[in-house]
Amino acid sequence: MNTRTLWQKYMQILEKVRAYEEALALLQWDQQTIASVRGRNFRAETIGVFATKVFSLTTSDTVEQLLGELQTASHWETLSPMQRRSIQVMHKAFVRARAIPEKMHQDFVVLCALAQNRWEHAREQRDFTLFCPILLRIVEMKREMIPYIHGQFVHPYDALLDGYETGMTVEKLDRIFGRLRERLIPLIAEIQLRQRAMRNDPWPHVPLDVQRAFQPFLLTQMGFDPDIGQLAQSVHPFMITINPYDIRITTRYEESDFTSALFSTLHEGGHALYEQHIDPALHATNLATGASMAVHESQSRLWENMIGRSPVFWEAYYPDLIQRIPQLQTMSFSTFYAGINRVAPTLIRTDADEVTYNIHIFIRYACEKQLIAGTIRVEDLPEFWHDAYAQNLGVTPTNDATGVLQDVHWSGGDFGYFPSYALGNLMAAQLWNTLKKDVPQWETHMRNRNLIPLKTWLTKHVYAHGSMYTPEELLVRVTGNPLDSEHFLSYVAQKFGIS
Amino acid sequence: MNTRTLWQKYMQILEKVRAYEEALALLQWDQQTIASVRGRNFRAETIGVFATKVFSLTTSDTVEQLLGELQTASHWETLSPMQRRSIQVMHKAFVRARAIPEKMHQDFVVLCALAQNRWEHAREQRDFTLFCPILLRIVEMKREMIPYIHGQFVHPYDALLDGYETGMTVEKLDRIFGRLRERLIPLIAEIQLRQRAMRNDPWPHVPLDVQRAFQPFLLTQMGFDPDIGQLAQSVHPFMITINPYDIRITTRYEESDFTSALFSTLHEGGHALYEQHIDPALHATNLATGASMAVHESQSRLWENMIGRSPVFWEAYYPDLIQRIPQLQTMSFSTFYAGINRVAPTLIRTDADEVTYNIHIFIRYACEKQLIAGTIRVEDLPEFWHDAYAQNLGVTPTNDATGVLQDVHWSGGDFGYFPSYALGNLMAAQLWNTLKKDVPQWETHMRNRNLIPLKTWLTKHVYAHGSMYTPEELLVRVTGNPLDSEHFLSYVAQKFGIS
Repeated sequence: MNTRTLWQKYMQILEKVRAYEEALALLQWDQQTIASVRGRNFRAETIGVFATKVFSLTTSDTVEQLLGELQTASHWETLSPMQRRSIQVMHKAFVRARAIPEKMHQDFVVLCALAQNRWEHAREQRDFTLFCPILLRIVEMKREMIPYIHGQFVHPYDALLDGYETGMTVEKLDRIFGRLRERLIPLIAEIQLRQRAMRNDPWPHVPLDVQRAFQPFLLTQMGFDPDIGQLAQSVHPFMITINPYDIRITTRYEESDFTSALFSTLHEGGHALYEQHIDPALHATNLATGASMAVHESQSRLWENMIGRSPVFWEAYYPDLIQRIPQLQTMSFSTFYAGINRVAPTLIRTDADEVTYNIHIFIRYACEKQLIAGTIRVEDLPEFWHDAYAQNLGVTPTNDATGVLQDVHWSGGDFGYFPSYALGNLMAAQLWNTLKKDVPQWETHMRNRNLIPLKTWLTKHVYAHGSMYTPEELLVRVTGNPLDSEHFLSYVAQKFGIS
Repeated sequence: MNTRTLWQKYMQILEKVRAYEEALALLQWDQQTIASVRGRNFRAETIGVFATKVFSLTTSDTVEQLLGELQTASHWETLSPMQRRSIQVMHKAFVRARAIPEKMHQDFVVLCALAQNRWEHAREQRDFTLFCPILLRIVEMKREMIPYIHGQFVHPYDALLDGYETGMTVEKLDRIFGRLRERLIPLIAEIQLRQRAMRNDPWPHVPLDVQRAFQPFLLTQMGFDPDIGQLAQSVHPFMITINPYDIRITTRYEESDFTSALFSTLHEGGHALYEQHIDPALHATNLATGASMAVHESQSRLWENMIGRSPVFWEAYYPDLIQRIPQLQTMSFSTFYAGINRVAPTLIRTDADEVTYNIHIFIRYACEKQLIAGTIRVEDLPEFWHDAYAQNLGVTPTNDATGVLQDVHWSGGDFGYFPSYALGNLMAAQLWNTLKKDVPQWETHMRNRNLIPLKTWLTKHVYAHGSMYTPEELLVRVTGNPLDSEHFLSYVAQKFGIS
């Protein structure tokens, strides 16, 4: 077959995979926004049928053959960079998926489906011992899988990290996170000291309908395109791509904390901007998504924190907020700004401020790394967790629900995913520094309530490229340097006035 | 293989088909309720992938073999009535689908996809000549397909009717519709004469949000279960089953006609009650749906018209309506009741009252029957239509959009479908008569705003059985007689006081 025919066959498979992924995405969106509980429960089998199909489509002998042929020199040389990158990404996913024996894969899927329910039940009961036996099995299976995964891995956990961030290793993370932790701990103490005098009044109650009115305005300001997307409500906010012209987000509303919706919208809106602005030339390929989990998270964090928790942003938009939310008319700007930037150690990762958030990740990273290495036992997790929180954040969980059971990830077998959150924070600060240099008028634009130049820069340098580049390639292209946590540290120091 | 194994293999295929149909249903729901226009357009390929998959799943050699083996005497004798019926229904669909050569089927699907756009364009331009060439090709292909369809058919159109209502024929329809037409024409004239003195004031404007508040109340009264269903809004109201525990409907709101939403909700609510109350023992099979298109329509019509346009119903519920829609406080009950029961020939089928509606169907039936027989030409349709409306209803279309181009069906290749609407009306009246005999307190229940005994009777006699029986079997089981249009005629005569 000639290259053209091979490529067409390859693209036909991608198109089929895309169709199944669209259906799966729509099912998930529907589950979390409007489907009734009983309808949702019945749907597990449907999702199973489709997930199995995607797995078999992407790991078939046909795919193996096509990938093999396309990567022979005579074909490879004639391919464009985009075609090559597409094949590389597909090849990596293929190798990782095919490496695991099919029976083992299926057993693991079934185990995780069970574990999801057990975890929910255990969390309700606030009792880790109810979840412990199945988590033990998950960790065991995960450890059994690692030798099957192809690649040059020094630490067994590297094989899992590589699934989310290509090339990330324990060695790198120990260095990045270690240094960051060392600097953050005293920084947090100092910020807390400075904020000690701040009053900590509760937010006024704001009816949900009043809150709802502000979110579309916020999204429009960000440059979110409602013609190819929409906003809904869910318990856990998320962004999901149905197809390249249908990017949806949800936000969460709390009557007693109107800022929850604001920052959920900014966060998910950041994810959505990324997906909405990918170069249409990539739409038909497997590159029409973020460069990695961490790069995606850098965009949600950049909008949520660097932009959305900055003084300039709210000096510009606080009048709009008050106008739409009359309950805030008696609240001064400084009270509002202080309230959205309070730094304080807490128990729950998802409620953490932008500074202490990373500490929550370090603790999870330490747990996972050692579980996978076999240097701590699953049974000992609550104690490990308790000690780590006491030592790093000075707070201790009152029960397992506010401790080791708070996150869904482990019940789904997602080990190696947590570090991406902290890496995203670091990338956000690094990209933000470059943006400020490249768009020196950024502050004036913001004051003029014009965020579009910021979005335009991000589109050109990050969004448009989808996953054409690895996270590291992208970062070097845009900022001139690989990941460097100094950007984040100086961002924090400057913001909170620590010299 | 033993019967048990064969049956399990058969059920595995049904489960897979169900999964694909759930995804297709959700895609359709999403398209018509919340998806953005650009997202919808991108989705055509996804729908194509799934529709093709359902076709290949249900027409595979494996299915042929399983159906063949299960129907051999040694297996068949050990099967339950439910199992046998499931196989019969599957077998009929299989035979019909496999009969058409694959190439012909694919060409037809592509043709209809094109025709859909042409029809929309032609309707916008109000010009049949823009649609004529492609409709000509559709009719030609439909006629070419008929000889392939297996069965004992006297008239070629019988082969198409049989696709929607098993066993329905031109001979039967000519008799049923012919007699009905003969009696309806003078009946309509007489009702119109009596209604001549009635004032015909426009309805008051009612804001959409006010209208929306009443629909959930109406659905709850009907016995619609919101735990396994929901209501949304769309341009064309519809009911769709996502899965047996997720039955959704939409309604349509018009500010200048608040009754549009009322009767759309009652109509689609009737369809939904049917699907929500199918015996769970049928859920995993292909029998978890209505007995036929006509039987389904009988349930929407029964709730919309026999119940929802009756004086007793509104005597009971008009106070609720006024309470929720203050704009109606100055309108007397008699004005309201007269307004929702005005009988008058109109041009548009979907706007027709319950009496003249059937005439619209007779005209379409005549068109289709003759197109398929080759006794009229596609080019002559507008003239045929014009004359038929003039002769039967005394009204003539002002342009093709309000005439021959008003319905979507032909552009989708759906010939043989229209008669089911009128058959549904007739069945509704026949079932309603039996219900009134079996539940002699029906009027008292209604007056007490308690519709549940009506729903309970319908569940026991119609809904629970899904498609366990053919339409005729069901009708005979429940009413003791095959379809008889006398029930409808006497219902109309009695309602409008014609002796």
